[in-house]
Amino acid sequence: MVRIIMHGCNGHMGQVITGIVKEDKDAEIVAGIDLVDNRDNGYPVFKSLKDCDVEADVVIDFASAKAEDALIDACLEKKLPVVVCTTGLSEEQLAKIREASREVAVLKSANMSLGVNTLLKLLQDAAKVLAPAGFDMEIVEKHHKHKLDAPSGTAIAMADSINEAMGNEYTYTYDRSGRRQERDPKEIGISAVRGGNIVGEHEVIFAGLDEVIEFKHTAYSKAVFAKGAVSAAKFLKGKGPGYYDMSDVIEANA
Amino acid sequence: MVRIIMHGCNGHMGQVITGIVKEDKDAEIVAGIDLVDNRDNGYPVFKSLKDCDVEADVVIDFASAKAEDALIDACLEKKLPVVVCTTGLSEEQLAKIREASREVAVLKSANMSLGVNTLLKLLQDAAKVLAPAGFDMEIVEKHHKHKLDAPSGTAIAMADSINEAMGNEYTYTYDRSGRRQERDPKEIGISAVRGGNIVGEHEVIFAGLDEVIEFKHTAYSKAVFAKGAVSAAKFLKGKGPGYYDMSDVIEANA
Amino acid sequence: MVRIIMHGCNGHMGQVITGIVKEDKDAEIVAGIDLVDNRDNGYPVFKSLKDCDVEADVVIDFASAKAEDALIDACLEKKLPVVVCTTGLSEEQLAKIREASREVAVLKSANMSLGVNTLLKLLQDAAKVLAPAGFDMEIVEKHHKHKLDAPSGTAIAMADSINEAMGNEYTYTYDRSGRRQERDPKEIGISAVRGGNIVGEHEVIFAGLDEVIEFKHTAYSKAVFAKGAVSAAKFLKGKGPGYYDMSDVIEANA
Amino acid sequence: MVRIIMHGCNGHMGQVITGIVKEDKDAEIVAGIDLVDNRDNGYPVFKSLKDCDVEADVVIDFASAKAEDALIDACLEKKLPVVVCTTGLSEEQLAKIREASREVAVLKSANMSLGVNTLLKLLQDAAKVLAPAGFDMEIVEKHHKHKLDAPSGTAIAMADSINEAMGNEYTYTYDRSGRRQERDPKEIGISAVRGGNIVGEHEVIFAGLDEVIEFKHTAYSKAVFAKGAVSAAKFLKGKGPGYYDMSDVIEANA
Repeated sequence: MVRIIMHGCNGHMGQVITGIVKEDKDAEIVAGIDLVDNRDNGYPVFKSLKDCDVEADVVIDFASAKAEDALIDACLEKKLPVVVCTTGLSEEQLAKIREASREVAVLKSANMSLGVNTLLKLLQDAAKVLAPAGFDMEIVEKHHKHKLDAPSGTAIAMADSINEAMGNEYTYTYDRSGRRQERDPKEIGISAVRGGNIVGEHEVIFAGLDEVIEFKHTAYSKAVFAKGAVSAAKFLKGKGPGYYDMSDVIEANA
Repeated sequence: MVRIIMHGCNGHMGQVITGIVKEDKDAEIVAGIDLVDNRDNGYPVFKSLKDCDVEADVVIDFASAKAEDALIDACLEKKLPVVVCTTGLSEEQLAKIREASREVAVLKSANMSLGVNTLLKLLQDAAKVLAPAGFDMEIVEKHHKHKLDAPSGTAIAMADSINEAMGNEYTYTYDRSGRRQERDPKEIGISAVRGGNIVGEHEVIFAGLDEVIEFKHTAYSKAVFAKGAVSAAKFLKGKGPGYYDMSDVIEANA
Repeated sequence: MVRIIMHGCNGHMGQVITGIVKEDKDAEIVAGIDLVDNRDNGYPVFKSLKDCDVEADVVIDFASAKAEDALIDACLEKKLPVVVCTTGLSEEQLAKIREASREVAVLKSANMSLGVNTLLKLLQDAAKVLAPAGFDMEIVEKHHKHKLDAPSGTAIAMADSINEAMGNEYTYTYDRSGRRQERDPKEIGISAVRGGNIVGEHEVIFAGLDEVIEFKHTAYSKAVFAKGAVSAAKFLKGKGPGYYDMSDVIEANA
Repeated sequence: MVRIIMHGCNGHMGQVITGIVKEDKDAEIVAGIDLVDNRDNGYPVFKSLKDCDVEADVVIDFASAKAEDALIDACLEKKLPVVVCTTGLSEEQLAKIREASREVAVLKSANMSLGVNTLLKLLQDAAKVLAPAGFDMEIVEKHHKHKLDAPSGTAIAMADSINEAMGNEYTYTYDRSGRRQERDPKEIGISAVRGGNIVGEHEVIFAGLDEVIEFKHTAYSKAVFAKGAVSAAKFLKGKGPGYYDMSDVIEANA
């Protein structure tokens, strides 16, 4: 049983995690931290971690960047491991977090979904076998029509993961319409599809001679990120100082 | 039973069609036309259609552009309907073919596959219902690594087909990486994936609120184009002058 | 602008529809009917349609079967068209609804999603062209692990739709493991995949010689049924007596 | 450079391998073995391996079961490693092959495709992470209409591979239509789709809460098995006695 303090408990993701932990017999939210306290969460809510006197094993942080510094300070003081899911952190904050990991366990990842992180690892294994055998690698991602950036951060992370495994010899291609030439064996094409309210779909294609292997991840709701955060919290319980990411969680469960 | 003269019978596609017609009890190749005569096709081979005295219902033309003028002249003289599958024709030749269709039946299409042409029609029907209901439309095509052009002609034909059904209000987008903005409802994104020796795959995505419909065509070999040509020949038998395409074949069979 | 009375407004689907209509400038919920009145919906809530004195164009009914008789009686009295989405109705209730359609417009469908209903129509068109050309037809559906029945009602509806278009010559096959024989050309295989919390995915495969066409519908949430109900309400506004289904809605929009 | 003796060189698969090796600068067929000698392969053809005096590194065996005993005897005598791809071997022959592996290197696998064998390994890695996290596992395979058995041997091999990784706790389900109950968490559903001339498609689905991961292998022609055999030959060159399978080839290349 891991006892969690939920930082940002009354925000959208805090509520999703609260719902998920309620159904998980191996985890419990023992306290929440939020500036607003307008919900019946079934656990006490404090204005800041510093004010919180409830004993716990881990903090899950899904709040806003401006609350990050006070949170990290309090984690250091209380020697509390922390799963950092808050985005939009400054370079200074990222450095502060890395510095903190010398004294407490910190886990931070580009994508919290267990599925995507499992795939990131498997893609490396697949690339090491298939790329030398002449398979070409391509990525197609699909997201909702409101998404501003393209390709998605996760698609880039997938390409980077493959590229790292292959000695970083590959370049990325986003558009083939403006040219008239054969595919370069050392390129990874990345295509971005947009439409409707698709939460997120990533497909990695290994195309060889007369056979194709596809790896596809589909997210149906943001709950997958919440689940990943809870898995990370369980992993972090009792861990000593160190900087971890989701691949460590997966390895530990393997 | 349709009696076919196969123009370009000893080329790659001519041989594929020869093989397919052998298994088709409603069609027969009664003569072939080719400059070379190095195979045992089971039918007589002539140097040109003009020299061929075998009675037939239709010519299937899968030869080279330089043989096109003589072919069309002979079709006019013999009043023979012709399925034109030869590509790379000049503007003059295209005009000559259209002119010829005033005197004999001519069928010509961007893509001879029954599947793709069936899809072209259904996509229009789908777009008319789904686009007004707020569905976004995207196309992803996949081809082998040697393909020079992108997107494929068939992907463009699909987009054009949809666009025509919607009053030609849509523009096409080939690259989203260079911008940072929401999807325009009046755009059709077209992505081109390249790798291995994929013969051809086309996927049209209609993405709405909480539901997605996908139409996907996969070609496993060039035999699909051969089959389409034979269907076209059957359709053309006994037809009077006119300019037809594969959608007429499909409509007639519907 | 269609003015809707939402029957069962405080149930799960009633709330989903309330949310969707709020964002729709061509529709408005002017009153709700529910035994409980515990929410701030922004419209008045009555215990029964009989008690409701708000002027409206259509009723959407997503309530419980036991409220159905009183609802139909009130629709008849007020001459109000009704979209019936409530399930589990008795034979007597279904007969009563059909009887009522002689005096007011009634719409009822096996599946309210615009996407699935659009597909049902297109599948018939596809089958009429592809089946005579030798394409085999198969259906794969995927649903969450809690679903008791298999295959899904929608998969059966798809097979029935195809079968009807082909003169009802096909039988359905659910299991091939117990035999050792070639596929019967007049069979439609239907496979049911179960896992996780997949909302609903239906794929219809037309497999021919060297080409395959797939039609796939993916539902991401139950909101698709809500959207379908609102489209149906818009369609039903001002309609005279008659018994309609979603295919009429689609046809009208085509 | 590996020097190959092709056993069964004038059969279908022998010819496919001959074609593939011609384009491979790291492999060469130095001799063929076949009862018939009716082709211009560019290498000498002998009636049996015993008669063949050409120096080589490995034998690839894609012949008929009745030639197997003499082949194994000759491999033992010449101390030649052998890639056994011939199917339909008797229990006695399988035992003889295993016995032979004490004196020469032997490689034998259920499926020679690099893609499928890579996937078999990755599926185990995926299952170890995802199954304990509550993901359900399902397999859908698609093959041509003439295939007699269902599910395919490769689908079973995939299920077995996953099952082995999970301590063999799972049972396989081929039909859900005859029951009305929730999915058992310890079952792997296996569905078989048949139609057209699909060479072979295998999809393994891991369905979790709000996310799904799919692994899909598509074979476009039998050439994939030929390629696998050549990779195996390269791997086997210079190997001492032992019994290997394709997973060893993949591991060595990883």
